[in-house]
Parts: sequence; C-alpha cells; structure tokens
Amino acid sequence: MRPAELEALAAAEAAAAAVRGTTSPNPPVGAAIVDAAGRTVGVGATRPAGGAHAEVMALAEAGEHARGGTAVVTLEPCNHTGHTGPCTHALVDAGIKRVVFARRDPNPVAGGGAEWLRGQGVEVVHPEPDELPAPTLDPWLTAVAAGRPAVTLKFAQTLDGFTAAADGTSRWITGPEARRAVHADRAHRDAIIVGTGTVLADDPRLSARRDDGTEYDHQPRRVVVGTREVPAGHHLAGVCEQYPDIDTALTELWESGARDVLVEGGAGLAAGFVAAGAVDFVQAYLAPKLLGAGHPVLGRPLTETLAGAFEFETTGVRRLGADVLVEGRVARRRRATGENP
Amino acid sequence: MRPAELEALAAAEAAAAAVRGTTSPNPPVGAAIVDAAGRTVGVGATRPAGGAHAEVMALAEAGEHARGGTAVVTLEPCNHTGHTGPCTHALVDAGIKRVVFARRDPNPVAGGGAEWLRGQGVEVVHPEPDELPAPTLDPWLTAVAAGRPAVTLKFAQTLDGFTAAADGTSRWITGPEARRAVHADRAHRDAIIVGTGTVLADDPRLSARRDDGTEYDHQPRRVVVGTREVPAGHHLAGVCEQYPDIDTALTELWESGARDVLVEGGAGLAAGFVAAGAVDFVQAYLAPKLLGAGHPVLGRPLTETLAGAFEFETTGVRRLGADVLVEGRVARRRRATGENP
Ligand SMILES: NC(=O)c1ccc[n+]([C@@H]2O[C@H](COP(=O)([O-])OP(=O)(O)OC[C@H]3O[C@@H](n4cnc5c(N)ncnc54)[C@H](OP(=O)(O)O)[C@@H]3O)[C@@H](O)[C@H]2O)c1
Ligand SMILES: NC(=O)c1ccc[n+]([C@@H]2O[C@H](COP(=O)([O-])OP(=O)(O)OC[C@H]3O[C@@H](n4cnc5c(N)ncnc54)[C@H](OP(=O)(O)O)[C@@H]3O)[C@@H](O)[C@H]2O)c1
Repeated sequence: MRPAELEALAAAEAAAAAVRGTTSPNPPVGAAIVDAAGRTVGVGATRPAGGAHAEVMALAEAGEHARGGTAVVTLEPCNHTGHTGPCTHALVDAGIKRVVFARRDPNPVAGGGAEWLRGQGVEVVHPEPDELPAPTLDPWLTAVAAGRPAVTLKFAQTLDGFTAAADGTSRWITGPEARRAVHADRAHRDAIIVGTGTVLADDPRLSARRDDGTEYDHQPRRVVVGTREVPAGHHLAGVCEQYPDIDTALTELWESGARDVLVEGGAGLAAGFVAAGAVDFVQAYLAPKLLGAGHPVLGRPLTETLAGAFEFETTGVRRLGADVLVEGRVARRRRATGENP
Repeated sequence: MRPAELEALAAAEAAAAAVRGTTSPNPPVGAAIVDAAGRTVGVGATRPAGGAHAEVMALAEAGEHARGGTAVVTLEPCNHTGHTGPCTHALVDAGIKRVVFARRDPNPVAGGGAEWLRGQGVEVVHPEPDELPAPTLDPWLTAVAAGRPAVTLKFAQTLDGFTAAADGTSRWITGPEARRAVHADRAHRDAIIVGTGTVLADDPRLSARRDDGTEYDHQPRRVVVGTREVPAGHHLAGVCEQYPDIDTALTELWESGARDVLVEGGAGLAAGFVAAGAVDFVQAYLAPKLLGAGHPVLGRPLTETLAGAFEFETTGVRRLGADVLVEGRVARRRRATGENP
C-alpha cells in the first residue's frame, strides 16, 4: 500500500459512510481512483439499489485520468452482471492497472473479482483481511454472514443502568448531542425496530430528524414487533410494518432487502433479541446520572451467574456533550463457522 | 504565559501527580523553575507532610540557575511559616523574578502569597482561575472547600448497571487493565472506605498491589464503616480503622489529615454516601457485558423520578483493555457558597 492509496481509501470510506442506509440490499461501498502521479482523481460510492456501483461512480469522475491508474475500493470489485455490468470489466475498460481493496466479497455470485482481474494482468492488492479500515461495511458483511439483517441494539440509560426512573420518567435521559447522534444514525439504517410495549407507552415517531424538526432525506423503515395492535392515531399507525415476533421480523426484513437495522427497545424486546442471539452491535448512550432504581435496560434476566453474561467487544467510546456513547460488537463464533442463526 | 512556562507547568503537574496520596494534609503541589533562556532547570513536588514544599524542591534542583528565572507552580506559593519557612521567601531569596501559578490557595493562613510577592517586586501571573491544567489539586481543593475529605465513589459494573450477577458472582467483572488502574489509583489515595457488608461478603484486602502481588510504597488507610465487627482472621482485622457511620468517618478522617478518599462500596454504603451529598467524584469501570438482572450499584433508590437523579459532569472517558472508565465530578452548589456539609 502506498501513502496516496491510504489517503484514497479514507476518501472512499468517507464516501461510503455518507451513503450508508441507502444502498441495501447492496453494500455501501466506496471507491477512489488514484492516477499515476498519486493524485486522487475520482471518488464514488454505491448508488441506491439498482444504481451504479462505487467503482463506476469513481471512474466517471476520473474520466481519462483513470488510464494507467489505481482503483482503491472498500470491497472486492464485483464480477457479475446484475442491474449493472461487472465492475471488474468497467475497471479494465477504463485502463486501471492496479486494484487495492479492503474487504473480500463474501457473496459467491458477486465474488471472484480479484481472480478475474489478475487474469487480465491487473495487479491486485488485498492486505491481510481487515487490516485496512472499512468499518462502514461491517453491518453488511455481518448480515451476509448471518443470513439476516445485522442488528444493532441501542439504549439510553443512566450510568447505573436505568432507562427510566421508577415512576417511568425518561424524557430526556440523555442530552441534545446524544439525541442528535441517534437521529443522524437512524438516517443511515434500513429499519428501526421497537416492541409494541414501547409503541403503546411512548407513541414514538422513529423518524430521523434534524434539530429544527426537518426530516433527513433517507428515512428508515419503521418496524413494530409484537401482536398487540398499533392504535389508530398513534404516530406509527399506517406508517409502520408490524411482525408478530423477532424471527418473522428478521426474515421479512432480510427478504425485502434490509441489511442494517437498529433495535431501539423497549426492555422486553431488547431482552428478546439478546436471548435469541440476534444482536451483533451495541450502542449504549450513558447519561452521567445515578438513580439507584428504575427500569432496567433488559426486561428480564439473561442469566443467574456472571459467566453467563452476554459479552461483546468495545469498539468505540465517544463523549457526546454531557453523555458518553459506548459502542460494541459481538464476537460471534457463528460468523466464523458460516452457520446461520 | 510563555510556551516554556506551559511546558514547565506540565512537568510540575506530572511531578505533583506522582506524589498524590503522600502529602496530606498538605496539597500535592508541583513546581518547576524556568531560567532566563526558557530552559526548565528544576522540578519538584511536595514532600510527605512536614517535608519541603514543591517550590523548595524545585529551587534546590535549579541551584544558581534560578536567579533571574521564573517559578511555575500548580498552587499559589504559601506565605506562612509551618513546618517549613514560607515558600514566598524562598523564591525571593533564590532570585526568582516571575511567578506563575495555576490555582489560588484557598487557605486563609497559607494564602496571600501572590500579594506578598508583588510587594517584593516579583511579577506574579495567575491566569483566569482554572484556565491552566492542574487536575491533581482537584481533590485537595474540594476537601478544603467542603471541610471534609474529597470523596470519590468508585464502582465496577456491567454496562447495564450490575456489580454482581443474581447469584452474587462478581469476580472479576472487569479485566486486568481495569484492576491495574484501580490498584494504581489506590496508591494515590489517603484512604479506601468500604462498608461492613463488603467486608463480611468479600473479605477484601484493600491494599494497592502490582500485578506480581507486591505492594506499592504508599498504602492508603483502610477504613470500614458500620457497626458490625470485622471478624478476626479477615484480611482487614487489625489493619483497618472502623467508624460507625459516614459522618463520623469523614470527620475523623479529616481531622487526622486525610483529604482524598475512595469509597469502594458496597451498594449500601455507596447509596449512603450519595444520599448524604458526600460524593465529589465518580469513577465507573464498565465491563462490556449485559446481565439483565443482578446486584445494583446503589443499594437503594435515590429517587422515584428522573428529575431527582444524582447528576455529575463527565470529566473523562478512557478505555482500559476491554473495559471503559468513565470519570465524573459533582458540580456542587455547596462549594460555591462555601457552606460546609
Ligand atoms: N431509554 C430507552 O432506551 C428506551 C427505549 C425504548 C423504550 N423504553 C421504555 O421501555 C418500555 C417498554 O418496554 P416493554 O418491555 O414494555 O415493551 P417493548 O419491549 O417495546 O415491547 C415488548 C413486546 O414486544 C413483543 N415481542 C415480540 N417478540 C418478543 C420477544 N421475543 N421478547 C420480548 N418481547 C417480544 C411483545 O409484544 P406483544 O405482547 O404485543 O405480542 C412484547 O410484549 C417503555 O416504558 C419505554 O419507555 C426505553
Ligand atoms: N462490584 C463492585 O464494585 C463492588 C464493590 C464492593 C462491594 N460489592 C458488593 O456489595 C455487597 C455488599 O453491599 P452491602 O450493601 O451489603 O454492604 P456495604 O455497603 O459494604 O455495607 C453496608 C453497611 O455499611 C454500614 N453503613 C454505615 N452507614 C451507612 C449508611 N449511611 N448507609 C448504608 N450503610 C451504612 C452499615 O453497617 P452496619 O450494618 O454494620 O452498621 C451497612 O450495613 C457485597 O456483595 C459486595 O460483593 C461490589
């Protein structure tokens, strides 16, 4: 990897992050073209499903400057003809001589791009899996490995673990910066999921809004899990999809193209997702407050003993105004063995 | 402030941090001497109580290089004759022409140093209170303002707020890096406090130990609060001090010179400290685990409603191996009005 290529990868990753949530079932990929002099001459990201792939967008920006250059892509270029022609062919046609990619394509249909390119005399560089930063692809890769959408469990709590006080007050546990982050995050998801208990108790909107109340361009699907009816007049009535249980919800979401979903509660549904082994990522917004008692994050015990705890790896910690966001990822043996849930 | 002085302040602060816990009832102060050419020619910190002050230590290292130079001190130089002569006089005698300090001395007896120095023709610089970093002094300043030791409430919990599983298992919730940080922190405290419940349940040592089991040079006093007896044969029997309640403990600790103490639990005593308004700092070690149920951080509810929560400011967030340390400080109106607890 050359320094110019690392820079190009950062640009590609940023482009991918910007479109995350709009590309499913396709992965949010970023690409950048580096010319022979080491200049980044084109950057692109996957267009919404059915639209162009990242490589094609980046090549279009680069134009003739691509000839003899290098393509840096967050995902192995696809080698099959879907809505669009194979990216591998587009790269060769544009005169690309070298391709660097960060993650291998796990899809047996789309994969094989690296080999085909090598066969065409293109130099292909794929550093040790996961050595290059391409975190935007994590949920999509997780989903494809699991055969269901990647699930992020999000909760907001006091530092001592309460999502609401004993009397039910919870508005707002966290401050404006954390709320802003939650809304921005929603705008990059395929769907937001809540249980019927939360719908009945809180009547949430689940839309992705800016501080001034305006909605982000991309709105996630709003999904309610449970058998109780969403009452007419509630914000979600008429705008949500409803499924009776977690399994049905994840199956239907997967089949309709969702790859990256956020579970926002409540405690009952959150415990259900954890108990089902269907949580891949954790986002905990922590308010610097202690209550001593109140409503817990999970609605029922997972275990009697510490050895049975649901464990994850901390992947990030960030201050958001007065609050703290702890992010994690579940190290899932299932993923390594390729077994589906 | 000149760049060389900011560097010198960092050295002074580091020297102070190294002696924190050994100087009480004196503050852990750091000092550095900068010569006319901008070189740091001496650094010192407060010696254990009765020993030399930071300025004197730094001057001793600087020797003749101090003449015409600047003294950078984390606390306003003292102006009274205690175990040692006034630092103000030592500075003038050494030929110091300029003094920069980060925090004003709140002690009416020791204070007044800045004025006296100005009267001697020394240039005295004291930027906006608290603009310069001198965090090592925080607990001591808090203690002096409150008229009792500064109290840090420390707990280790799963992310969802449990210090132990339902069956009582808690060993170890957090990993080796967090444990190492706890022990290093203990070595910088005047005392560690636990309730009788913890003594009876866990039989803790409360010493400050390295990974290899050896003890740090400075060991905090070990304090048990409660009326139940520490059983003979328990690790703390014979080595701890015991007080029947929180108020008595804090009064006795203050009068015997403690300024900076750590409350390590359990849940009953922790709730008692919070309810008494006697918590100044919070240290929460968070393990990336969810239990859903278990033993809470505080042994009883503080409030029924969110508005009644015990609030603090987040002052730091740090990853410690797999775990996260969240540190906070209680913004206390009491302190501003000078009212004692
Ligand atoms: N601070 C936060 O982060 C936060 C976020 C959201 C909600 N909340 C709070 O959480 C409370 C609601 O919690 P809740 O537990 O009553 O409601 P919930 O978790 O929103 O919904 C529970 C319902 O989900 C359905 N469900 C389907 N499959 C499930 C499974 N495997 N496990 C569990 N539930 C399943 C069931 O619906 P049916 O019974 O209809 O079949 C169940 O009754 C509200 O008070 C809300 O304010 C807090
Ligand atoms: N994970 C962690 O961070 C952590 C750390 C420490 C302990 N723990 C766990 O906490 C449990 C012990 O908790 P605990 O509540 O039983 O014991 P505790 O908090 O250690 O001790 C409670 C005792 O403190 C005394 N006390 C004096 N003044 C008090 C006041 N104002 N409020 C409350 N108590 C006061 C009372 O003693 P008398 O009744 O004798 O008068 C009371 O019974 C153990 O299971 C231990 O494993 C967890």
